[in-house]
Amino acid sequence: MIALRLFFLAAFQILVLTPIYAQTTDFQWKQVAPGVWKATVGKPENFSPLGVAGIQPATAALQKLGTPAFPKYLSGSKNELSDGKAYLRFPLVKEEQLFGLGLNFKSVQQRGTIKTLHVDHYNGKDDGRTHAPVPFYISDKGYGVLINSARYITVYAGTAVRKDSKNPPAEMNRNTQKDWSASPYSDAVEILVPAAGAEVYVFAGKDAMEVVQRYNLYCGGGTLPPKWGLGFTHRTPTLFTDAQVLKEVEEFEANGYPLSFVGLEPGWQSYAYPNSFVWDSTRYPKPKQFLDQLLQKNIRANLWINPYVSSHSPIYKKILPYSGTHTVWVGLVPDFNMKPAQDLFKGLFTERHIQLGVAGYKVDETDGYDDWLFPDVAKFPSGRSAEQIRQTYGLQFQKISSDWFREKNIRTYGLVRASNAGASAMPYVIYNDYYNHKDFITALVNSSFIGVLWTPEARSSQTSEEWLRRMQSVCFSPMAMLNAWADGTKPWTFPEVAGQVKEVMQLRMQLLPYLYSTFAQYHFEGKPPVRAMNLVEGFSFEEKIIEGKLNSTDNPYAQAVRQDIKDQYMLGDYLLVAPLFAGDRSRKVVLPRGKWYDFYTGKFVGEGETIELKNLTGVDKIPLFVRDGGIIPMIPPILHSPVKDQILPLTVRYYGSKENSWNLYDDDGETFDFERGGNSWTKLEVKKDPSGKLTGANPAAGGKSFHYNSIKWEYMTK
Amino acid sequence: MIALRLFFLAAFQILVLTPIYAQTTDFQWKQVAPGVWKATVGKPENFSPLGVAGIQPATAALQKLGTPAFPKYLSGSKNELSDGKAYLRFPLVKEEQLFGLGLNFKSVQQRGTIKTLHVDHYNGKDDGRTHAPVPFYISDKGYGVLINSARYITVYAGTAVRKDSKNPPAEMNRNTQKDWSASPYSDAVEILVPAAGAEVYVFAGKDAMEVVQRYNLYCGGGTLPPKWGLGFTHRTPTLFTDAQVLKEVEEFEANGYPLSFVGLEPGWQSYAYPNSFVWDSTRYPKPKQFLDQLLQKNIRANLWINPYVSSHSPIYKKILPYSGTHTVWVGLVPDFNMKPAQDLFKGLFTERHIQLGVAGYKVDETDGYDDWLFPDVAKFPSGRSAEQIRQTYGLQFQKISSDWFREKNIRTYGLVRASNAGASAMPYVIYNDYYNHKDFITALVNSSFIGVLWTPEARSSQTSEEWLRRMQSVCFSPMAMLNAWADGTKPWTFPEVAGQVKEVMQLRMQLLPYLYSTFAQYHFEGKPPVRAMNLVEGFSFEEKIIEGKLNSTDNPYAQAVRQDIKDQYMLGDYLLVAPLFAGDRSRKVVLPRGKWYDFYTGKFVGEGETIELKNLTGVDKIPLFVRDGGIIPMIPPILHSPVKDQILPLTVRYYGSKENSWNLYDDDGETFDFERGGNSWTKLEVKKDPSGKLTGANPAAGGKSFHYNSIKWEYMTK
Repeated sequence: MIALRLFFLAAFQILVLTPIYAQTTDFQWKQVAPGVWKATVGKPENFSPLGVAGIQPATAALQKLGTPAFPKYLSGSKNELSDGKAYLRFPLVKEEQLFGLGLNFKSVQQRGTIKTLHVDHYNGKDDGRTHAPVPFYISDKGYGVLINSARYITVYAGTAVRKDSKNPPAEMNRNTQKDWSASPYSDAVEILVPAAGAEVYVFAGKDAMEVVQRYNLYCGGGTLPPKWGLGFTHRTPTLFTDAQVLKEVEEFEANGYPLSFVGLEPGWQSYAYPNSFVWDSTRYPKPKQFLDQLLQKNIRANLWINPYVSSHSPIYKKILPYSGTHTVWVGLVPDFNMKPAQDLFKGLFTERHIQLGVAGYKVDETDGYDDWLFPDVAKFPSGRSAEQIRQTYGLQFQKISSDWFREKNIRTYGLVRASNAGASAMPYVIYNDYYNHKDFITALVNSSFIGVLWTPEARSSQTSEEWLRRMQSVCFSPMAMLNAWADGTKPWTFPEVAGQVKEVMQLRMQLLPYLYSTFAQYHFEGKPPVRAMNLVEGFSFEEKIIEGKLNSTDNPYAQAVRQDIKDQYMLGDYLLVAPLFAGDRSRKVVLPRGKWYDFYTGKFVGEGETIELKNLTGVDKIPLFVRDGGIIPMIPPILHSPVKDQILPLTVRYYGSKENSWNLYDDDGETFDFERGGNSWTKLEVKKDPSGKLTGANPAAGGKSFHYNSIKWEYMTK
Repeated sequence: MIALRLFFLAAFQILVLTPIYAQTTDFQWKQVAPGVWKATVGKPENFSPLGVAGIQPATAALQKLGTPAFPKYLSGSKNELSDGKAYLRFPLVKEEQLFGLGLNFKSVQQRGTIKTLHVDHYNGKDDGRTHAPVPFYISDKGYGVLINSARYITVYAGTAVRKDSKNPPAEMNRNTQKDWSASPYSDAVEILVPAAGAEVYVFAGKDAMEVVQRYNLYCGGGTLPPKWGLGFTHRTPTLFTDAQVLKEVEEFEANGYPLSFVGLEPGWQSYAYPNSFVWDSTRYPKPKQFLDQLLQKNIRANLWINPYVSSHSPIYKKILPYSGTHTVWVGLVPDFNMKPAQDLFKGLFTERHIQLGVAGYKVDETDGYDDWLFPDVAKFPSGRSAEQIRQTYGLQFQKISSDWFREKNIRTYGLVRASNAGASAMPYVIYNDYYNHKDFITALVNSSFIGVLWTPEARSSQTSEEWLRRMQSVCFSPMAMLNAWADGTKPWTFPEVAGQVKEVMQLRMQLLPYLYSTFAQYHFEGKPPVRAMNLVEGFSFEEKIIEGKLNSTDNPYAQAVRQDIKDQYMLGDYLLVAPLFAGDRSRKVVLPRGKWYDFYTGKFVGEGETIELKNLTGVDKIPLFVRDGGIIPMIPPILHSPVKDQILPLTVRYYGSKENSWNLYDDDGETFDFERGGNSWTKLEVKKDPSGKLTGANPAAGGKSFHYNSIKWEYMTK
């Protein structure tokens, strides 16, 4: 017995007490799809963003995209386990640029930054705390690295210089050398995963865009919203009654402003913050009738919620055992890793909302502000830590709620405040309370790297100029939303610009065929609808470091200020959007290689150069430029998104002087039948005759899935 | 053999794979000193701030402070291990206020906040990232809790409401109830320690002050600076030569501005950022002679450094194996947990600096900005993680460098950018680059809770008014410093206020006996020299919540704005300091119970009330108020701190109308002989005669340690 105990003790010592001396090792990459590799480090956790998202790789599309070799730049990557954590290291070469690493609002290029990726409300610093802290970075050398972890991982994106670096920067004497840098060149991305292991994915690509495509396709392909989701949406004030909402809808109609869906804010519920999830019987006594009235006007309804359960909710008692130890505003925090919690939500939401005609949700407060969320000390019945649940809460709600609609063969399109890796296929758009117009556009740019959608919502404004600028840019985003829950603002609130606002909202509606095809590219090819310039062919931009000015108060160490192209982007293949901001009297626009034309006039504006737009006072339109060969299909300025089977005439604008063709997508706009062949791709083609004259061909009709009865070509460039 | 393997496997499974099912348990408190208890949770790490600081509890002083019972408020505290981390929970009662939790710059009261305590440069938010993220909080109910961990711990200071709370707040309906709160009342502080265990200390006290005293005494008692340390200090521009420094010193003298020590910035070294740690032979060819020249003028020298080692340093090659995997500006990062690294620094610094007469250091860049420091993926030869080393790097440098001086029986007093728990006895003052005057004062207030010193340094100003206000407040702080390294500002740079600046600098010098006794209280009684109003007897302040205004942009959820007394403080027992800020034309001052008098005139100003100072335009003096019975010993406005054995006349100002006595401290001002009896406490006493007339007694002389040859009483209140 003593011998046995001694042996037992020895085994214990060997197995437990002996520190595992950490050795740096190579990754063992295993191809999991064409151009996609995976490696595991240590003992990865059985819980991850991709797992929560339930991704189903779009295998055929990945195959079609090609079978590139493993990125040579990543040979020499290393990993190590130490201090109970996984240490990962990936090499970098000089001049290499990095993008991604979450939904950032201030910067596009991420090399030289440090981030701890943490789901939170964005608070003014690109430090990793944001709504979608996707642990994925893309190199302009043509690869991407994803750490599939639901932990707060820290990323040193080329900032830490190792003692054993083979090619270290020279040591400088700050006393005498003016080009001393506080952040010398580093030849590696290093990542700390605070878990006993990690799962790492590598995505190859001939360029950054192909990497993003492969990532999105591996995550199932980008979401394809219903047609109504791409129309205009207005969120009504929080305590509005059914009658007030209907009146507001009628005002839009009467004034000629487009509207495809309305959002109902907390007051639709009997109790909110935490939530009963049932209709307030005084403000909405007959919800089915109310929703029917809206639908008769071709308007859908979206319901605001957050996931925290009020004691007044019918599911409160049943969900109690499947909720965490801590509350949010004294409401229960469901553990959606427990099937009963999912089922209780599904039952209530299906019966009380979806079956009555509710078209989608706005899922609030899944992000943070820290005290607007459960704490990291909370414990959950599934055994998942609060950290893991926080990192995936918004993502998981996207997944389970979109499945409710999918089961009914209805597409939804909603709003969410938190997301993570694997979200490409989720029919949700991220929004927040941070209300900086310029930074909203940078978030739009950055959303394109990481498989999420973002809306730079309009809410209120100090001036009519600001109002116009905000309404213009939101019309060139994945969700054209006026969020008037607190202010009651309407598109025509500033009479001086009411006409111009109407014009850009109408333009949004006219562009629906172009937008819808652009989203179809997201779904079928993995190309994001909004595209950072760094993803665009022909764009080359050398990062400039503007030397900082030494000043003991604001910039005591003369830190260099980084210059980034973060205020313009492409919407689809052809449209370059250069938003204006209140107060701007001029702005620069960087045009990629090739000829570019003004969207409104068709006139040539420049070619592979930076142009400056001047004298912008009184400019009514948002600057839009079209690439040479640009094919922009448009419909008349209808007030509501087309209903199923609605047939419309098509006008196709053509820009520039070269032959080109482009595929117009269509389907029923409402169901998932498009996944089973119920769709059409129609080739729009422009050819030159021997005299050099351009002519657009009348394409073969796309059958049942093609909803245009005529095609008129409009040659914009004379 | 197979059986053995199976057994081995079984043992492995039992010992390693079986998850330890976490159970909430009570703490097992063990008294470790009078009024101080300790408990361990799980398996605490063999590395902690108190360990690094090498604290030596002041046992006799603790005994003298009394032997209170374990705080009843903490019964019901719980802990738990889960997810590889320690979860701690301490109860709170309604209206309980919490202070501490690191060097905060915006807020004093900490209940209702969430912080992840992380050594970093403060960046505008009280989120736990700060220079001294001391994991210690103090309750106004008379207890303090210290988590002695060198990890990034997260503290929910009464924000998280548990489902099983015995006294939870009522659920509210935000739709209809105006007093809905985003942060409902929580009855617990909850803490997440990301380590397999934690060491927790509890400090009792009859009030918050006594808790702080006990904490400081347990950490060895507060530091007692040399007398020169409390004089005025000026840091010269970075590339100054010995001659330029001497000239600047002469200018101070010639213009009649006090100066006790000068600081030399990076240019004193041959290489800096990283550092050679040796004198630059062109700018300082004869350092010993230079230091002697300064000392002849009764001026000490302080050297700027950061700990990162240049390849041009004599210790580079030897310290290489005792440094981390990563560099800072390509310089080595010594692992001071390795004795050889400590010894190499000691040898070089002693031989090249201290033996030549260097009096102290300014230890820069131990805090962060993240990329001004080693990354968390760095590894160190001692096996300590980068996280643990970051949390203690500044603290450890304070400890090892102060020991070099102590061994020579010389007191030092320097500057440091990072600290942590256990620092009370360290002769270092924290400073930073954040340059907000108001927030600098709030940091001064908060320093008093956590055993650290802080200087609201003056550096540059936009206006003469700002200059005067900054110079005034820095003269009422632990280190009166003009930090002109980048700007070359001098006290007389703004001629309009040069006289007023001189006046407050002179006042600083006049107050040295009061200041020195105040620091002696810090050392012998644990009372901090600067004191938050919340530590002051007779101060009662009910936290007011000012209702936020609903505004969709700036304050979309109508968050209540918290009101805090954060712009005034006590310096020692009697002086209430109410700094003015540039642009202020009026300010409020909260006077604790009892009568208060104007420092300059002796006139009564108020009694347990809030007074408003008005028409502040052109006010030349910093508002100072004295408690009834205030005894303020002063010397003439000398230009340099007294040298050893220098005898001066004493004037004792007396305020108010009641009998009182106070103990004046003195010693040689330079050595540690005061720890071995070489000091004196002299009772200054004021008594009323039968007619009610107040008379100050001529005290018995304090022997060799008493450096005043006469005492003149000045009755300020007529």
